[in-house]
Amino acid sequence: MRPPELYFIDGALPETPAPDDRPEPWTETRVVGSRRTRIDGFDRVSGAAVYPSDVLLPGMLYAAVLRCPHPQARVKKVDTSAAAKMPGVRAVITGATPAADLRWYYSRTVFTKLFDPACRFESEAVAAVAADTPQLAWDAVRAINVEYEVLPFVVDERAALAAGAPPVHDGGNRVAEPEKYSRGDVAKGFAEANTVLEASYRTATEIHCPTEPHGCVARWDGPRLTIWESTQGVYPVQQRVATSLEMPLANVRVIGSYMGGGFGSKLQADKYNLIAAALAKLTARPVKLFLTREETFLCVGNRPAANMKLKAGVRKDGTLTALELTVLGTGGAYPAGGTSLVDWLVRDLYTCPNVRTESTDVYTNAGPARAFRAPGHPQGAWALEQMMDALAEAIGIDPVDLRLKNISTVSQAREGQPPYTTTGLERCLTEGAKAFGWHEARKRPKGNGPVRRGVGMAAGLWIAGSGGPPSTVVVKLFADGSANLNMGASDIGTGTKTVMAMVVSEELGVPLEKIQIENADTGTTQYATASGGSKTVPTEAPAVRDAALKVKRQLLEIAAEELKAPVNELQIDGEAVVSRRDPKVRKKISELDGVRRRGLVLGVGTRGPNPEKKAVDPFVAQFCEVEVNERTGEVKVLRFLSANDSGRVMNRLTYDGQVIGGVTMGLGLALTEQRVLDRQTGKMVNRNWHDYKVPTAMDVPPEIASLPIEVPDNEANISGAKGLGEPVTIPTAAAVANAVYDATGVRVTESPISPMRLVALLAGKRAGR
Amino acid sequence: MRPPELYFIDGALPETPAPDDRPEPWTETRVVGSRRTRIDGFDRVSGAAVYPSDVLLPGMLYAAVLRCPHPQARVKKVDTSAAAKMPGVRAVITGATPAADLRWYYSRTVFTKLFDPACRFESEAVAAVAADTPQLAWDAVRAINVEYEVLPFVVDERAALAAGAPPVHDGGNRVAEPEKYSRGDVAKGFAEANTVLEASYRTATEIHCPTEPHGCVARWDGPRLTIWESTQGVYPVQQRVATSLEMPLANVRVIGSYMGGGFGSKLQADKYNLIAAALAKLTARPVKLFLTREETFLCVGNRPAANMKLKAGVRKDGTLTALELTVLGTGGAYPAGGTSLVDWLVRDLYTCPNVRTESTDVYTNAGPARAFRAPGHPQGAWALEQMMDALAEAIGIDPVDLRLKNISTVSQAREGQPPYTTTGLERCLTEGAKAFGWHEARKRPKGNGPVRRGVGMAAGLWIAGSGGPPSTVVVKLFADGSANLNMGASDIGTGTKTVMAMVVSEELGVPLEKIQIENADTGTTQYATASGGSKTVPTEAPAVRDAALKVKRQLLEIAAEELKAPVNELQIDGEAVVSRRDPKVRKKISELDGVRRRGLVLGVGTRGPNPEKKAVDPFVAQFCEVEVNERTGEVKVLRFLSANDSGRVMNRLTYDGQVIGGVTMGLGLALTEQRVLDRQTGKMVNRNWHDYKVPTAMDVPPEIASLPIEVPDNEANISGAKGLGEPVTIPTAAAVANAVYDATGVRVTESPISPMRLVALLAGKRAGR
Repeated sequence: MRPPELYFIDGALPETPAPDDRPEPWTETRVVGSRRTRIDGFDRVSGAAVYPSDVLLPGMLYAAVLRCPHPQARVKKVDTSAAAKMPGVRAVITGATPAADLRWYYSRTVFTKLFDPACRFESEAVAAVAADTPQLAWDAVRAINVEYEVLPFVVDERAALAAGAPPVHDGGNRVAEPEKYSRGDVAKGFAEANTVLEASYRTATEIHCPTEPHGCVARWDGPRLTIWESTQGVYPVQQRVATSLEMPLANVRVIGSYMGGGFGSKLQADKYNLIAAALAKLTARPVKLFLTREETFLCVGNRPAANMKLKAGVRKDGTLTALELTVLGTGGAYPAGGTSLVDWLVRDLYTCPNVRTESTDVYTNAGPARAFRAPGHPQGAWALEQMMDALAEAIGIDPVDLRLKNISTVSQAREGQPPYTTTGLERCLTEGAKAFGWHEARKRPKGNGPVRRGVGMAAGLWIAGSGGPPSTVVVKLFADGSANLNMGASDIGTGTKTVMAMVVSEELGVPLEKIQIENADTGTTQYATASGGSKTVPTEAPAVRDAALKVKRQLLEIAAEELKAPVNELQIDGEAVVSRRDPKVRKKISELDGVRRRGLVLGVGTRGPNPEKKAVDPFVAQFCEVEVNERTGEVKVLRFLSANDSGRVMNRLTYDGQVIGGVTMGLGLALTEQRVLDRQTGKMVNRNWHDYKVPTAMDVPPEIASLPIEVPDNEANISGAKGLGEPVTIPTAAAVANAVYDATGVRVTESPISPMRLVALLAGKRAGR
Repeated sequence: MRPPELYFIDGALPETPAPDDRPEPWTETRVVGSRRTRIDGFDRVSGAAVYPSDVLLPGMLYAAVLRCPHPQARVKKVDTSAAAKMPGVRAVITGATPAADLRWYYSRTVFTKLFDPACRFESEAVAAVAADTPQLAWDAVRAINVEYEVLPFVVDERAALAAGAPPVHDGGNRVAEPEKYSRGDVAKGFAEANTVLEASYRTATEIHCPTEPHGCVARWDGPRLTIWESTQGVYPVQQRVATSLEMPLANVRVIGSYMGGGFGSKLQADKYNLIAAALAKLTARPVKLFLTREETFLCVGNRPAANMKLKAGVRKDGTLTALELTVLGTGGAYPAGGTSLVDWLVRDLYTCPNVRTESTDVYTNAGPARAFRAPGHPQGAWALEQMMDALAEAIGIDPVDLRLKNISTVSQAREGQPPYTTTGLERCLTEGAKAFGWHEARKRPKGNGPVRRGVGMAAGLWIAGSGGPPSTVVVKLFADGSANLNMGASDIGTGTKTVMAMVVSEELGVPLEKIQIENADTGTTQYATASGGSKTVPTEAPAVRDAALKVKRQLLEIAAEELKAPVNELQIDGEAVVSRRDPKVRKKISELDGVRRRGLVLGVGTRGPNPEKKAVDPFVAQFCEVEVNERTGEVKVLRFLSANDSGRVMNRLTYDGQVIGGVTMGLGLALTEQRVLDRQTGKMVNRNWHDYKVPTAMDVPPEIASLPIEVPDNEANISGAKGLGEPVTIPTAAAVANAVYDATGVRVTESPISPMRLVALLAGKRAGR
């Protein structure tokens, strides 16, 4: 199995020994599982929350970056003399500036310079300016004269290996030998099948589009660098910045307590961190460098296009006999996991003895890919789940039944084929179908006029939703019974802080409004891996529970002494310690002298190891109904239901929020989103929110129903939770495509299902093509 | 024994159970004990360090306080209408403003209002303003019209109990019944003496005069209040603010990573915290409220004047037989420990079977006292150590020998008379005398002209220098071998951070430049009591060592596995783990995979308990030589030597810095410092650094020699250190007075030894008075 490296590029390896004396699983909960608004909701909506882009420091300068406008070029000369003389300009740096002569690495093996003469995609950094205002900085950027040697380019991955294609790197456009996987014997499998189908699929490149652009503020205090960064993981940023600047980790402090969305694109440091640091050093002033919205479309990641050819064999009874997938993809101009995990669902979602996949990753002159909400999985689901739909139709069984037939209780693609701790996929399918009214809806007429109705469904699992060590957190219970949680993890907008406060509240009886959280600061908070991979809750919640239980134990011991009652007879009820036998034996936490004597009671919690020889994955099944206008090609999603097994539901409100957000993102992949690189110029033509279409409130159905299939996974970890954020977006686009097929009889194998594309396919169908 | 309550007014009680599996004491050290410049030296001298008074927040307003100009008055009417209309004025608050209608407590029992109509000393708060600039705020303060009922007052504590003295509070001017202590039978003791002397002494009121004035910035984020405070203890400030505002402790975050001196005056919250918080709440803007230098002279504390009458009996051989002390003092207008600890040295410094003390604390119309570098002790030493000098002369033995004769190995005044873990007083006296050349200097002629020379000495101990629990710290060792220390304690300018970094470096081999410290933030750092009482090093260093050892243990275990060597054979050498048996078996910490896998290695350390039934005190003996111009009354201190037993020397450089600073402060008490309250108006007449004379570089001898008497106190705690900051200032003034006596034959019993006072005494002596 290929590791999902995008999550761990600079972070710690995801394993550590940790003590594991497990507490009892929660049976009844008072707080966990309920609907709770965010503990930082007021801060967020009032504007009081200071996001990195809000940071204002005395004397702060603003930076802007001159970026190469060509998809491939060589910088021959940079003339900064005019820019340097402009009023308010404090520093101009280029590759010739000693302080900016830094190594930059795009992967563990491929190094370039911070300002490299070789520009391999539109928007590579060429020079940068720090000035008194952003406007002055941009004026100065425009005043820099660069002489480029403009070179031929290739931006379409399908053309990258063609003879005569311009090479992105000296060694040609193949990133590595194709990645191959196989089990069983696919030839034998296809021979055993009653029906064999084969089809090609493609998903377009998507851009992350977080609300807050990428950027940072950098400040030096002597030998120490502080970076306020909009990030999903302060520690990976610390690590790459420290490595690049050859500084001790302790001297690089990264703070990212709030951040405005990332979706995988903010798991790592970026060149702008080093540019801001170099400018701050040169000017002895804090420097703010936030990218413009346009820049974020070009150079801070994307979900790369996937070209998939899938062949599948099935018996009459619905048993899958063989799956064969070839993938061609690109991470852009640098090694960035262009085909990473695209084949995972084909390998692992359904029981199938014979599977073969082959993935070819090529270079193109485009911005590097980054992890994007369930890397590879929605692409793979787009192929596999449309294929399952086609197979079901071919052998005449219900698509839900075909999937139920092939449910696996082991992870077939993992070494040793370990069993899943839990799998709720069967319940997701059956209960989801029931709640959606799937069988009734399938029978309803499609309509006669140009507006046709159809229903579709798809399923999925997510490879990385178990979470795991390392993580350390500290819970402090103050003498008045209020509490503070110190945690390294970022809350990337998913409500992590609220969930963790609920865990503290569950164990210690502290009301949420008396819990404060400090998080995501390498200087002051504990260690956590980046918030990505849907692993934040299953990683941090167990550590928080562990810490809270350690506080609880001390608290009960203190109370036992003061109440003169045996410790095992005591429990926390509300904000008091009470005897189970005699409710009159009771003392408020704020009245415990022993707590006051210590100042506070502190518990350090760690995330224990995952169970050995077991797989922990979340599962999902989704159902939707669409209306297609065959004249205009418009697709309207009428209703949507997502049934998720993500283990225990920690906060029903933020749980549903994740479902709604993930489905919305999947609708973007299905219907509207695509990066368009002009074939003539190699430049992106839709680098803004007008031309690049993310779904708006008008584009989503009035109801996106969330149906939790709650199977607390107590074997996986002591919170019972599995990941949620990514599984919810995996089958969405495929479900929509299947519904469009149901409505129209046209299978749209290439995303997005744009009106133009759909109208053309419908015309082809009418013409019998 | 009266607890030194000034240190613990709002803080935690100084005891907690804590695990205590003691490591071996340090025998040889590589880092600890050496001379190291401050790890934050660059930040401090470059101006990069952000002190609370440097904090600038976007949208921040500036506040100023209208203060009562009368020593006693009643506010009848406050008219803010003109002020409220002034441009740039954002809020004006008085006692009538609901948001400012808050309770304030000066002690655990005495409550007033934040803006109380009863003004009991010059500068009580009457109203406050927040405006766009400090200038506008002050303009608005001047535009507020207050109608006062001006009342009679008493500012001299010696007049407070006189018949007809104006009462400060309704119940009269006695704070409480006199505090009494006695052991043995003083009448019997005096009867057994060969010589009995009796004298009256007085020390003037001193002002703390830290470089950074008192103040804060307050900001609300929804229900949470953040205060940047120039403080010695973030937790006591948090506690009082939360209590006053009836908020959960967790919702009040106090940050004070840097602070510009306190000397005891910044151990607690002040009214200005609540004023800033109220103004910030009303304006929904951050508010900065720093006192002017003039205000700091009036309302944020002082070392109160002590009036002492001491009677002492001694046998011919130098054995003390009885000591009797009465003290009259004042904490000002509120209960503030006016006579606290003044009698401690009389009770405890020298072996004496018969001791009686009685302390009377009265109210006066003056600003409340606060803890001031060794509360009570320098006052008590002024009396006791001049008396010892007089006794030695009376019975014809050397003052050093008289003290050596009466050294105690037990703390006589503590319950059960526990033995000291260690006492280096004998060595301080003998080695100090030798290093100073005491005996030679005593024999030198005093001079014939108007300029006379003399030498004097004095000794002391400090009651609170043991430190103690609770304290928790966290040490994080990053994967590259650099480290971070998270600690609640403030570095009040003494070099605490550097000492703690040295402890980490000692155990983990990390060079100081790779250690970063986060401290003094109730939101992000661990629990510590306030930095006061000379207890910061003996409290925190053991906790830091404990944390570092916990990291070390894990590190050696990780290395043992990777080096395939038994763990007990391994040690840390430089930045590597090395086998004691075979130096080739070696791995750099930054190359240990196990550390990388965990992200970092974390150790949580706590301060273990102090030894039971033992006393832990630091000791000191000081020697000086002065030159007195009998014509002008000028006293010039020519040289000074301080011999200190403060246990292990942690950092020789900051150790000497403490000695120099403490002696300098003692010279101020001896020679120049006194608050002058005008008898006619009750107002302070020298409220600035021109008229209130703190010693400058021109007023101290060219050399203040530091002679550490290093007796590592391994029984006291696992660092072996005892307190230093306060003992060094305790005997200083008395030593100078004794030297002046040696030079002139005049005993100046009232501080300061100002030229005017000395000239008058010399004239009296010449006149045979």
